[in-house]
Amino acid sequence: MSRTRLWLFSAIAIAILSTAVLLVFYSKNTQSLARAQDTNNDFSRKNIVGGHTPGYSILETSGDVLDPVSVNVTIKDAVVDPMKYLREFNYGKVSKLPNGTTLREFTLVASDDKVKEISPGVFYNVWMYNGTVPGPTIRATEGDLVRINLINNGSKSHTIHTHGIHKAEMDGVFETVGPGGRFIYEFTAEPFGVFPYHCHMQPLEEHIVHGLYGVYIVDPKTPRPPADEMVMVMNGYDTDFDTENNFYTVNGIPYYYMHHPIQIGKNQLVRIYLVNMLEFDPINNFHLHANLYQLYRSGTSLVPHEYTDMVTMSQGERGILEFNYKFPGQYMFHAHKTEFAEKGWMGLFLVKDATPATGGPAYNSTTTANNMTANIVSQSQPVSQKRGGET
Amino acid sequence: MSRTRLWLFSAIAIAILSTAVLLVFYSKNTQSLARAQDTNNDFSRKNIVGGHTPGYSILETSGDVLDPVSVNVTIKDAVVDPMKYLREFNYGKVSKLPNGTTLREFTLVASDDKVKEISPGVFYNVWMYNGTVPGPTIRATEGDLVRINLINNGSKSHTIHTHGIHKAEMDGVFETVGPGGRFIYEFTAEPFGVFPYHCHMQPLEEHIVHGLYGVYIVDPKTPRPPADEMVMVMNGYDTDFDTENNFYTVNGIPYYYMHHPIQIGKNQLVRIYLVNMLEFDPINNFHLHANLYQLYRSGTSLVPHEYTDMVTMSQGERGILEFNYKFPGQYMFHAHKTEFAEKGWMGLFLVKDATPATGGPAYNSTTTANNMTANIVSQSQPVSQKRGGET
Amino acid sequence: MSRTRLWLFSAIAIAILSTAVLLVFYSKNTQSLARAQDTNNDFSRKNIVGGHTPGYSILETSGDVLDPVSVNVTIKDAVVDPMKYLREFNYGKVSKLPNGTTLREFTLVASDDKVKEISPGVFYNVWMYNGTVPGPTIRATEGDLVRINLINNGSKSHTIHTHGIHKAEMDGVFETVGPGGRFIYEFTAEPFGVFPYHCHMQPLEEHIVHGLYGVYIVDPKTPRPPADEMVMVMNGYDTDFDTENNFYTVNGIPYYYMHHPIQIGKNQLVRIYLVNMLEFDPINNFHLHANLYQLYRSGTSLVPHEYTDMVTMSQGERGILEFNYKFPGQYMFHAHKTEFAEKGWMGLFLVKDATPATGGPAYNSTTTANNMTANIVSQSQPVSQKRGGET
Repeated sequence: MSRTRLWLFSAIAIAILSTAVLLVFYSKNTQSLARAQDTNNDFSRKNIVGGHTPGYSILETSGDVLDPVSVNVTIKDAVVDPMKYLREFNYGKVSKLPNGTTLREFTLVASDDKVKEISPGVFYNVWMYNGTVPGPTIRATEGDLVRINLINNGSKSHTIHTHGIHKAEMDGVFETVGPGGRFIYEFTAEPFGVFPYHCHMQPLEEHIVHGLYGVYIVDPKTPRPPADEMVMVMNGYDTDFDTENNFYTVNGIPYYYMHHPIQIGKNQLVRIYLVNMLEFDPINNFHLHANLYQLYRSGTSLVPHEYTDMVTMSQGERGILEFNYKFPGQYMFHAHKTEFAEKGWMGLFLVKDATPATGGPAYNSTTTANNMTANIVSQSQPVSQKRGGET
Repeated sequence: MSRTRLWLFSAIAIAILSTAVLLVFYSKNTQSLARAQDTNNDFSRKNIVGGHTPGYSILETSGDVLDPVSVNVTIKDAVVDPMKYLREFNYGKVSKLPNGTTLREFTLVASDDKVKEISPGVFYNVWMYNGTVPGPTIRATEGDLVRINLINNGSKSHTIHTHGIHKAEMDGVFETVGPGGRFIYEFTAEPFGVFPYHCHMQPLEEHIVHGLYGVYIVDPKTPRPPADEMVMVMNGYDTDFDTENNFYTVNGIPYYYMHHPIQIGKNQLVRIYLVNMLEFDPINNFHLHANLYQLYRSGTSLVPHEYTDMVTMSQGERGILEFNYKFPGQYMFHAHKTEFAEKGWMGLFLVKDATPATGGPAYNSTTTANNMTANIVSQSQPVSQKRGGET
Repeated sequence: MSRTRLWLFSAIAIAILSTAVLLVFYSKNTQSLARAQDTNNDFSRKNIVGGHTPGYSILETSGDVLDPVSVNVTIKDAVVDPMKYLREFNYGKVSKLPNGTTLREFTLVASDDKVKEISPGVFYNVWMYNGTVPGPTIRATEGDLVRINLINNGSKSHTIHTHGIHKAEMDGVFETVGPGGRFIYEFTAEPFGVFPYHCHMQPLEEHIVHGLYGVYIVDPKTPRPPADEMVMVMNGYDTDFDTENNFYTVNGIPYYYMHHPIQIGKNQLVRIYLVNMLEFDPINNFHLHANLYQLYRSGTSLVPHEYTDMVTMSQGERGILEFNYKFPGQYMFHAHKTEFAEKGWMGLFLVKDATPATGGPAYNSTTTANNMTANIVSQSQPVSQKRGGET
């Protein structure tokens, strides 16, 4: 089209320009309404985000982020209790095989029809193992026989793919477990380290981003030194289905540990089992404030790989972080990818002079809980299928 | 513009709204047609992608992905034979210099005018060394003199930039080799390790994403232990020129090793020389199923850096992976960046009880093929220029 | 809306189609003008980018990139002098405490109202410590007492968050320093390593992308071997505020070291303190040409972690790189993320046979400059507040 012709249409254009502005205005409003309806079922209000430093002004946001630092809203139907999850290690139902090997049995129930609150006022269809995102932390010692009973209570096929060494048929890839189905995974716990487990059904990104993952820890036969041990899973939620995350968290709820700082003791060795299960984004990272940690990549070594305050992980990567604080006070930990931090992936350690009431050596790796299977199942939905494989 | 004025135009807006919807509808259709014409020259059909697990339903896709797991279509004019490429190491034309040094001569012919099939039904203008993407794997021993004859059969300038230690004038950056030109690169092979080589002409992203890269291996003087050795290059193709990849592969063809699993022997040491040449995306990664590997970053150490099943690499990063499977069966390996896996970067190892017919010690690093130069050239297009620098 | 109704409006649509094209055309022109006014105050011309290899043709660009290789334009009001910054280590005003500890005092003045030239013809509102991006490099020895006087000359709140070990109240997170305010940070230099320091005010991404960061080096008590030491900070600028970077640099000015190669001596040990402060992009990386470097991740070890020519870092990651060139000549170093390189993150080492006039042992870590505090302050804007905490 020639420039001359274009200018002939300019008179018409002026009239249209005004209406175009109106259209944009109208469509924006429509979008906002649609979004509000998606994520916020019971009330319509402006979303605000506060500064993470006292005195910083409150700002309106796009609706993706609710900052519990300034706006402490209680979550009613949370996808997980992050404080409980933090230090809860499930050692399974323990028995001895005739050859002396320790058998640990776990039961994981997959569901995919629940809508839970992942951030105040934001409801999301989460797919879960045992009713939480992340699923329960499973823990064994190198050489144990691990048996995981998968019960699929969902309406889609699911599996459990565990990182670590095992037979092909125990890999949770080709052995589809349909709705109502079940499967018994059995393998020797090896090598020692920290591993993700997750559903491996296609489309993989949906099964992961909706929440079907958890942490599997294999302790070395000679246990690591006693410590205040905790699990941290880095994840995100794509609540508007555009293959970009709207929320980022550690342990399931954005900003949770900003509201509820993790209490640890001064000069107490802290050991974090850190796993990155973030979908869509190429990497995630973990920055510890005012301190450095010994980093054991993949947890497969007893000698640290690096002494740092920053580690970068792509999906499925993980490690063990060890540190202690020598001064009391509040310290942040968060993604150093600013976007992730600002959309929820940040938290606080509260270092106390005395040994904290929660945490501490009571949670270290030498403790064995023999009756965790029941606990796991009780967290989940009623199971209509009879479970197999339990002694 | 005031709100009052906006509402005055609202009557007109209603009329326009309808036509705007039509316009969007029309432009979408036009787009789809354009895409179909770009990537699919000879027939028009719906693209489908199957699940990677048996029984999973077939889905329509956007046209970017054809899954050879469910739809085994033979490629007629493939950019590479991934099974041949996997274990083919070119040791060059070997001779001895008066001082006892081993001289290895290679010839690489650059082209940029060929259209090859990168996935069933998808044709792409690939730029190649010796007629394949990736180009041939070049291999020498630390201390050898390496001589690479570059012949530019293309219509654009090209070079060979090899990672590793060498003189400035052998770096393939400032020494432009124009169409019809040639250049002789010469350097001592050092240090031992695994390295990419690639064209370094501007715009660099075009010369890389179109395929001008390959792997260069320098063995330590005392060879690594015998193993079933293979090369894996992670790459991608941007077939619609939007600086985002549409296909992801290991060794040139999406999903190839899903159809044609790589056969390895039980308890056989496998050694992968892994190089990431993916353009546009910030990182790539490699996950091995049901096993862990010893990771030698950059291949420059004889002691492994990490024992893991996940490594993250940005472009140009590489490493050596060593592992063996103790149970027979089929095992996946793939990017743990789900998008990459779902768009082609996945494959299978088939672990056999017996030593496999292909692979095995016959391919280990102690074998020297003396007459590879001829083989390399025979893979490529007819060379009109006389080659220089050969003895 | 039904298809039938859509076709009724098609007659109107044809008329609108023409004007819509006009609108797009008009709005594009408006955008271009707006951009030109933003980034280019004094003249209106076409932006061009030259090839980085001699003889390569000159291309028009989108306006984001001006290549000083082909178009050597002098910057009049640069955000930093990259050649001066490269080897300038500030050891502070030194005194001895009664207990024998060395006290090092530094003064950093934050500003946020200056517009500086970040690339020829491109002006950007930089937020700075002491008037430069990156801010001055601060250096101490393990065990020293470090005192940093922050003076906030800006119109927004700012802090200094230093990576490393210190008390909670010295972390620069919760202790907001308002406009006109000041704060004295004091901590023991530990552990040895290389660290970023940066403003930690919300919104964090703005305070970082605008330039409030620098490097803090802690030397081990037994110094590292003498070397030609230099600091490199990888950063970027988002000049059109779309949360994507338009320019990428090492040490503040795109392409600077392509024009002004860094002179180093043949066989001279070079030690780079490398820090990634790039905002928005998930990772950055550093490729050295024709050579490999020993990589000390985070600088916290005296034994290298890896021997390579490629390292990947997400924001806040850093390391020490050691290498020497044994052949004279010009060698590139750049991001192997092509986009970053092509938008400015590339440079040259010029290896000379003789020891270079600049650099060399005179800059090594054993040299102590006692009167750097004055220098630091003189670089910055006039300070209206009285500075405290100086002896």
